[in-house]
Parts: sequence; C-alpha cells; structure tokens
Amino acid sequence: MRRVAVVGLGHTKFCFNSPLTEVEMLAEAAMDAINEPNIKPKDIQAAFIGNVLGDFSEGQGMVQSYFINDIGCDQIPASRLEGACASATMAIRDAYMWVASGYYDIVLAGGTERATAMGVPLATRTFAMFGDSRYEYPAGFTFPAAFGLLAHLYSDRYGIPLEKLKEQMAAVSVQSHFYGMKNPNAQFHQEITVDDVLSSPMICSPLQLHDCCPFSDGAAAVVLASEEIAKKLVDKPVYIIGIGQASSPNLARQRKYLPRLRARELAAEQSYRMAGLKPKDIDVCELHDCFSIASLIAAESLGFFEFGTAGNAWEKGETRIGGKIPINISGGLKAKGHPIGATGASQVCEIARQLRGQMVDEGRQVEGAKVGMVDTLGGDGVILNLILSVE
Amino acid sequence: MRRVAVVGLGHTKFCFNSPLTEVEMLAEAAMDAINEPNIKPKDIQAAFIGNVLGDFSEGQGMVQSYFINDIGCDQIPASRLEGACASATMAIRDAYMWVASGYYDIVLAGGTERATAMGVPLATRTFAMFGDSRYEYPAGFTFPAAFGLLAHLYSDRYGIPLEKLKEQMAAVSVQSHFYGMKNPNAQFHQEITVDDVLSSPMICSPLQLHDCCPFSDGAAAVVLASEEIAKKLVDKPVYIIGIGQASSPNLARQRKYLPRLRARELAAEQSYRMAGLKPKDIDVCELHDCFSIASLIAAESLGFFEFGTAGNAWEKGETRIGGKIPINISGGLKAKGHPIGATGASQVCEIARQLRGQMVDEGRQVEGAKVGMVDTLGGDGVILNLILSVE
Repeated sequence: MRRVAVVGLGHTKFCFNSPLTEVEMLAEAAMDAINEPNIKPKDIQAAFIGNVLGDFSEGQGMVQSYFINDIGCDQIPASRLEGACASATMAIRDAYMWVASGYYDIVLAGGTERATAMGVPLATRTFAMFGDSRYEYPAGFTFPAAFGLLAHLYSDRYGIPLEKLKEQMAAVSVQSHFYGMKNPNAQFHQEITVDDVLSSPMICSPLQLHDCCPFSDGAAAVVLASEEIAKKLVDKPVYIIGIGQASSPNLARQRKYLPRLRARELAAEQSYRMAGLKPKDIDVCELHDCFSIASLIAAESLGFFEFGTAGNAWEKGETRIGGKIPINISGGLKAKGHPIGATGASQVCEIARQLRGQMVDEGRQVEGAKVGMVDTLGGDGVILNLILSVE
Repeated sequence: MRRVAVVGLGHTKFCFNSPLTEVEMLAEAAMDAINEPNIKPKDIQAAFIGNVLGDFSEGQGMVQSYFINDIGCDQIPASRLEGACASATMAIRDAYMWVASGYYDIVLAGGTERATAMGVPLATRTFAMFGDSRYEYPAGFTFPAAFGLLAHLYSDRYGIPLEKLKEQMAAVSVQSHFYGMKNPNAQFHQEITVDDVLSSPMICSPLQLHDCCPFSDGAAAVVLASEEIAKKLVDKPVYIIGIGQASSPNLARQRKYLPRLRARELAAEQSYRMAGLKPKDIDVCELHDCFSIASLIAAESLGFFEFGTAGNAWEKGETRIGGKIPINISGGLKAKGHPIGATGASQVCEIARQLRGQMVDEGRQVEGAKVGMVDTLGGDGVILNLILSVE
C-alpha cells in the first residue's frame, strides 16, 4: 500500500444555530480544503463524508451526493459513513484506504452536522439512538447517563473520592476553555474556573453542565493524496501513518471492563503497531472529550498515563503545552464544540496544523510537534484512532 | 490490487412486518454467509453495512456495531455506509477495496432495513429525505412523483404514446412477479397480468400500484475474501471484477439529460472498463426496478438495449431466461421486495447464485451464466454497478 498524506484542510467556525444547511457548511469547509493546496474541484476523484443526523435535523439524507455536485466535483463517487460521533474519522480512515490501495490519487474526506436547531430535548433523544435502542434507551440511558455511570465506576475502581474526581474533571474543562479562547473556530470563547464548573447546574450525577460538551453546528474537511502527488502539491505533507478502529456492544456487555472501553485499547494498539510507535512518541493529541470524564478514560487507554492518574495529570498541567502530552489544544469538544458528524475531521485538521507548525500566531503551537494522534468515540464505544506525522 | 471474491451468501426472506429488529435480521443473514464457506465469526476481520433508516424506524443508529458483537465478531471494525437505496452495494464496493488493497483478507458486507412498521405515509416521507430536501420535497417530489415525471419524459423523448408505455411498463411488473413466484425469499408469491397492472390503483400518473415496488423488511450479507483465501474456502469463488459509482445532484439540475441518469452511464462505464467487458458480455443482470419505468431506463443505460426500446424488449421476452439478457430473475425489487438498506447485497447474492449455477432447483437458472451485473440506484441518482464473474 502507498503512503497517504493530508494536503488540504478546511474548517468552518463551530457555532449554535448556523444559518447554513449541512450541505452548505460542508461545501464551505471542502472548498477551503481544496483551495489550500491550489487544486480544483475537478481534481477530486471521490468523497467520503461523515454525517449522523441529517435526516432528522434537516430531512436530508445522502448529503454527500448533493454537496459534491454543489462545489463542482461533477458526479464523482461520494459515500456517507456513519459511526455516530466518530463518523468523520471513519470517513477519513476509509478515504485513506482508497488512496493507499492505488485506486484513487486525490480524494476529499470530512463531515458535517447541524444539531442545534433541533433543540436540546430532541437532540438528546436522537443522540441516544447511537446507544442500544433495545436495552439502554428504554432504561434512561442517554449519553449523559452513560458517562455519569462511567464517572461513578471510575471513582470506585481507582479509589478516588467523588468530590476529588469532580475537581479533576473540572480541571479538564478549565483547560479546554483556556485553549478554546485561542481557537478562532471554537464555539465558546469564555474562560471558566474550577468554581464555575462545580457551581454549574447538575446534569446527571456527578456530571454538571460544564462537564458536558455542547450541541454544535459545523463542518470540516481534508484533502488526501498519495505521497507522490502530495510532495508536488505542498511543502509539508502530513502523513497518516497509523489507523485503528474497533466496535463495542452495549455497555452492559462491557461491564467487566468498564470504565475502560476495550475498543479504544484495541484501536490504539492497531494504530501504534501500524505506525511502529509507542505512546511516548506522540507529541500532541486530540481526544474525544464529550464529557470531562471521557478525557480521563481516553488519555489512560491511549497509554499517556497510568490508569486512575489522568485527573491528577490534568490538574498538574501535564496535558497543557509544555507538559508531558499536550491534549485538546483546540479547546476540545468542550470548548471548540461537537458537531458530531464533523468532529473527527476537525480533530484531524487541528493535529495537521500543529504538525505543520501553523499554530504560532494563535499562541497554541506545540513546539516541534512531529507526531500527533486523533481519538474519536462514537456511541457506546466505537473508537477510531489515527496517527499523523510530518516525517 | 488483489482479486477479491464472494465466498459466502446470506439472505433473509423479504417480508412485511418482520418480527425481528434490523440487528437481528442482519445477524441471521450474516451467520448464513459465514457458515456457507465453513468459517467462524472470529475469522471475519471487519464489516461494512448498509442501512438507511434505522434511526427513524427503530431509533437505532450504528446497527453495525451491535450486530457484529451479537454474532461473535468480537469488537472488529464495523462501518455503516449510506447511499440511500444503494447503501448495501456501496458497502460491498467499500469492503472490496479493503481486501483488494491487502489490508484485510476476509470481511463481511451487507445491509439491513425494516421499513414497513412505519406505515406507508411515514415511509414515503422518510424515503423522500434521500431526494433534495430544499427544492424537491417541498415541491411534492416524493419518489413516486419523481419516477412519474421520468415516465412522462420517457414517453415524450422517445415518442412512445403514454398508453403504449404503460403496457410496456406492465410487462416489466408481470415478468417480475413471474420470477418472484420461483424465489423462496421473495415478498410476493403471486402472478399478475397486464390487466392487473393497468387496473390497479393510480399512485402518481402514469404509475399505478403495480408499477411500484413495495416497502419491505429484510437483510442480506456476503463474505468477501482475497483470491488466495477464496480458493481454499470454496470450489467456485465469484470474483468482483468491476466496480463503478457516481453521484447526481437533484433532478432539476439533471434536466438536460433526463430521463437518462448520467450517473448510471458513468458508473457503468467505470465497471465495464475495469472488467474489460462490454454489455454483450453480461449473461445475467439484477437492476434497480424501484418503479417499472426505472427498469427501462436502467437496462438502456447499462447498454443492453437502444434508448427507447427496452419496453419492447420486455414485452418480447428478451429479458427472460433464454432472451437476450435475463434481468431480475429474482423477481426484482417489485416482487422480491425492497428493504432499501439491504437491496444491493440481495442483488449480489442473486447474481452470485446464478454464476455458481445454484438456481436449477428453483427453476430459474440462467444456463451457463459466467458474468453478471448488479445495478443499484439511490435517491436522485447515486448509482452503483458491480460486475461479477466465476472465471
């Protein structure tokens, strides 16, 4: 298989109540991704798009077909991939294979979502469709409930009193808002304190409002090319050197493993093995912080910290720039926002910009970053991991 | 890229009001596909699943993740692909690439759908989400309306009086029900006459009830393997030797081309070129007859008949066994049924069984068939074509 590189990036501002449709947001991100390496829509040979709820939110399925024709990619093959909140990462992994195999040379991948117009109750209900509809939703298992449960299990498993864990989780959200301030595409530009988190409304014990990422609208896209083409197009191709994916059954069937998600450990192992790297080789990471507790669980399973210690690492600043492993320097899902079908592509854009060294002006460059990791979680435990490198 | 073969087939009975969920139907089809070549669930390395409306019909997204864990494919990567009614063909084309590239050796692909419990009005409305939600649905463009329009355009373009065209379309449905009688998995086992079609209730002029395929529940699945593995597993691997895919914008933007769908001609050209074959080399075809008029349009664009002459060919029996090109010997979407997310996988199962020579007992074997074609249409004109061969 050939090496594959990211050569173009596009990212809308993430927001509440976008005036654009999902097709229009995706067109905006895709045209930025196509213009960046100075190619044309007609150079794109195929598209792979993540989208979760377009049929519910806008009565529009198959967004990929309308969008590619809107931007002048005349009738090219376009596929939609759905893996809940990991849909765009799934789309990028899939696009990778079509280039790595030699079938295509230049493809577009990305995602789009417009969830906020539904309002919070319907959005919460529709998001829950990506848990188990037979046994979880009827029992009240929306995602705040699922992650509330994981937080209680985490507290119990690692012997961290709940009040202490809540402070650790608060540190996650505080850091995310700190970096979100510096990200022009972030949904929130507002610093918060540990006290703000701990005094915010209770959502689902022990998770309070500021432990939860928002509903968001937005899109992100990348252009992928074979190594040969990439070297002609851009000075600094960012190669995809590791890919991993694994799926989970419902949470009850994972009970012996929780609060860890075994799918993440399987997916991470795949991507580390393919890249020939270990956790210590990762310079910067974007991981799936849909809830603050999710950050702790993810960072440990990716191998950055011992189990039960990630909260302490966040409190000590080890996940900030200059720390052991800078995580979610974008503001993460918590501050940057979480338009679910677009999130994975947004994470890839963030890591690619870090590896290109393009974050200096925004005051959030991880100096000398050469290798970055993307981690995206969908539903009850579909995990996608990508490892990117500039060398 | 390596050669890839179909080595296992599974197909539920298509029906109204299945008592099984989409996950359960897919599990049934998948286990049949896995058992056929005498492999185990743990031999499957990844899954690629078509599903369109699971979130609407059952409140269950991400069916692929739950289903693979239900059948014992422990936590393998599983992706959902959505291209409206062509979703399962899209999934199989995608699965093909992951084996052709050398990344996986054995994968599962298929699709599932349970649309009938929604009832006809909601099913019609949700299906319309796979047309253009901005300009078509608000104008009343559900799919019966779209294909009614195409029938009028076809009549006008080729100078076939509408009454004559209706008789030709009736011949399509009569043939489908004739072969559906012989297919144990078909939803309808009932012969109909031209008079039955022409006296059935008007749905959307000129389409009457018997010009329209039904809403259906069902699932189908295939196991794909590399050539090397396939030869060890089965006596008669069915190779995928051509793949094609193209996307369309909304119908108004295709107006200069209609009633032809340019995407089909692009996709067919891709698959013929890859296979090194021409239309005359195809021995048997399953094509997308969601409405009777769709069969005529498809058969012409695939190159089997001159434009404007397919209706005459159906009337003369040229599409029956023994005719120029046997088409929809399964009963087609009209009689076999159309569980939209599963249809493409069902078509591949049908063609593979024809090429293996397994239809003799059912009295519908196309004798000596060596090369077969699958054609699936999604929404306003996403087309997938596959060419399969036993040699």
